[in-house]
Amino acid sequence: MSSATRGRIAVALDAMGSDLGPPATVAGAAEVSRHPESPRLFVVGDADVVRKELEKHPHDRDKIRIVHAGEVIAQDDKPKEAVAQKPGASILVAAELVKAGECDVLVSAGNTGAVTLSCARMFARLPSVQRTALGAVYPTERRRGEKDDPFSLILDAGLTLEASAEDLVGFAVMGSAYSKCISRNARPRVGLLSVGGEESKGTEAVVKAHGVLKRVPGIDFIGNIEGMDIPRGTADVVVTSGFTGNIVLKMLEGISETVMRLARSAGEKSLQYKAGLLLLAPAIQRLRQVTDWQEYGGVPILGFDRLCIKAHGRSTQRAIRNALRVAHRAAHTDTIGSIRAGLEAAASVA
Amino acid sequence: MSSATRGRIAVALDAMGSDLGPPATVAGAAEVSRHPESPRLFVVGDADVVRKELEKHPHDRDKIRIVHAGEVIAQDDKPKEAVAQKPGASILVAAELVKAGECDVLVSAGNTGAVTLSCARMFARLPSVQRTALGAVYPTERRRGEKDDPFSLILDAGLTLEASAEDLVGFAVMGSAYSKCISRNARPRVGLLSVGGEESKGTEAVVKAHGVLKRVPGIDFIGNIEGMDIPRGTADVVVTSGFTGNIVLKMLEGISETVMRLARSAGEKSLQYKAGLLLLAPAIQRLRQVTDWQEYGGVPILGFDRLCIKAHGRSTQRAIRNALRVAHRAAHTDTIGSIRAGLEAAASVA
Repeated sequence: MSSATRGRIAVALDAMGSDLGPPATVAGAAEVSRHPESPRLFVVGDADVVRKELEKHPHDRDKIRIVHAGEVIAQDDKPKEAVAQKPGASILVAAELVKAGECDVLVSAGNTGAVTLSCARMFARLPSVQRTALGAVYPTERRRGEKDDPFSLILDAGLTLEASAEDLVGFAVMGSAYSKCISRNARPRVGLLSVGGEESKGTEAVVKAHGVLKRVPGIDFIGNIEGMDIPRGTADVVVTSGFTGNIVLKMLEGISETVMRLARSAGEKSLQYKAGLLLLAPAIQRLRQVTDWQEYGGVPILGFDRLCIKAHGRSTQRAIRNALRVAHRAAHTDTIGSIRAGLEAAASVA
Repeated sequence: MSSATRGRIAVALDAMGSDLGPPATVAGAAEVSRHPESPRLFVVGDADVVRKELEKHPHDRDKIRIVHAGEVIAQDDKPKEAVAQKPGASILVAAELVKAGECDVLVSAGNTGAVTLSCARMFARLPSVQRTALGAVYPTERRRGEKDDPFSLILDAGLTLEASAEDLVGFAVMGSAYSKCISRNARPRVGLLSVGGEESKGTEAVVKAHGVLKRVPGIDFIGNIEGMDIPRGTADVVVTSGFTGNIVLKMLEGISETVMRLARSAGEKSLQYKAGLLLLAPAIQRLRQVTDWQEYGGVPILGFDRLCIKAHGRSTQRAIRNALRVAHRAAHTDTIGSIRAGLEAAASVA
């Protein structure tokens, strides 16, 4: 990399381990490198494979560095065993670049468990964070922030199945800081998922978390939200345990599949319905585009002193490109600094 | 009531306290009484009001008895306080008829908390039941049983927010027995809601409950199900804590509202979309009919030694009629006996 690129944000991209692998990850990196404002990109993986892929795509040589890693953790490897037995795996090598300060943020589309364990091994947890969270985004009825963003952030999406009151407070603060940095939403509304609007409604952990959150400065805590608020998008940041978060997210996925199947089967049974669906096709297409997860690219693993953006396992070139942009923005806006400050503010009232 | 009606099932109907009140509840009872196979109906409430309503509708005098209750618990009363301060409330008088053995099953469309507390005060919990559950039904993609029923039963819907492994096992057994009796589904598939299919996935309570459920005789335990299985209808009985169950149910409600609003707004913006929606109208109408909660009428409160069917607070005559039918069927098929047997079988392997 030339002197012209000094001072730029550096991203460590785990090029291996995703469903589509280097043909998608390297192509995404090549595309990003051509943008004048792009970060520096450390592409970590089998050097021969990465180099060959890179040659297929126009890219900016000054901004891309290939870092060799001789091993790969596959999507269906058992995370614990794989991380222990493959010290040369691309995800671990990439995480180490971030740990060492050579890179500012980690991006991977690999095995979620292995990515999380690599972070846990290489990074430190932020002060007062007992358990980390995976953020996830889902489309809602409401738009928000400068980007007219239809997505709400929900956390935890499955790392911390049973969250204590302290965990929930941490998720709220981290989610708010992340959303502020990424969604250009100056005052994200933070809602605590429960079974009623009153402060007294919910599990013991939820009730206790509510009591703390309403006193935390610097976040826009709108109180408890309920199940119907999820599709409405009442909150920009939805706070819940990993168990409930995972079920909510998979339900949303399942419902959209069910609706599509019902529509297809109606269209096959009747010409009238087929015609109706054809007339509605542009609206359906537009809805699909607006709510496409590939537009979002990646979601954060929060709670560590280093940044990690997890891209979807099925990431295409476009999804990787967007994940790299999210990572760049998260590093550029000092998301970790904002999270640290938020956690300190929360600790002061707890 | 004449001698001709002896031996029939008797239902105690709380006629007061629902949103529409006696005009709906009494009309529903009158309609049911005219069916030759109908149960006897004890209509509990302000005798003057009930009598006046009853006169408006053709009914079978031999099958209806008015039981006076001088007080009413309103939908927005605080349950605990109301049950303590209004001993003459229709729900308590109706529950007492069931406790005393004069009636076989209780039906109410009133304040859910007050109905539950009235059951807790008047009835005993079945052996081994620590905490009771409210069942709820929701429409799915799949049809089941003799009735081609699109509904799955989910429990708990909100009575027991934090369920232990023992609670979850109890819910599974009670839900299976109820579903067998009511849905004419000889072998309801029981699924434990979790974050992955493997037995090791989930909270401590879920993992422990899985270990017991796979050994319980007499239920068709299909293992863990995930969020996407909810709309698909993979399980006929979905077992989860009241916290998650409540969120799932309200989310389903919210999503259908969001979809309707999006469709309406698309139709208002474009003639093409309006035409498309018109062509699809019969399919949408049919879907709405098939999935209408009023068709179902009522859901069970399970875990007591007496039966209680809770009808929706907004119940119309039609919903009350269907709730009375469900109650009749539940009593007629000895649902309590089946639940008792199921709980004994579960206790033998726990």
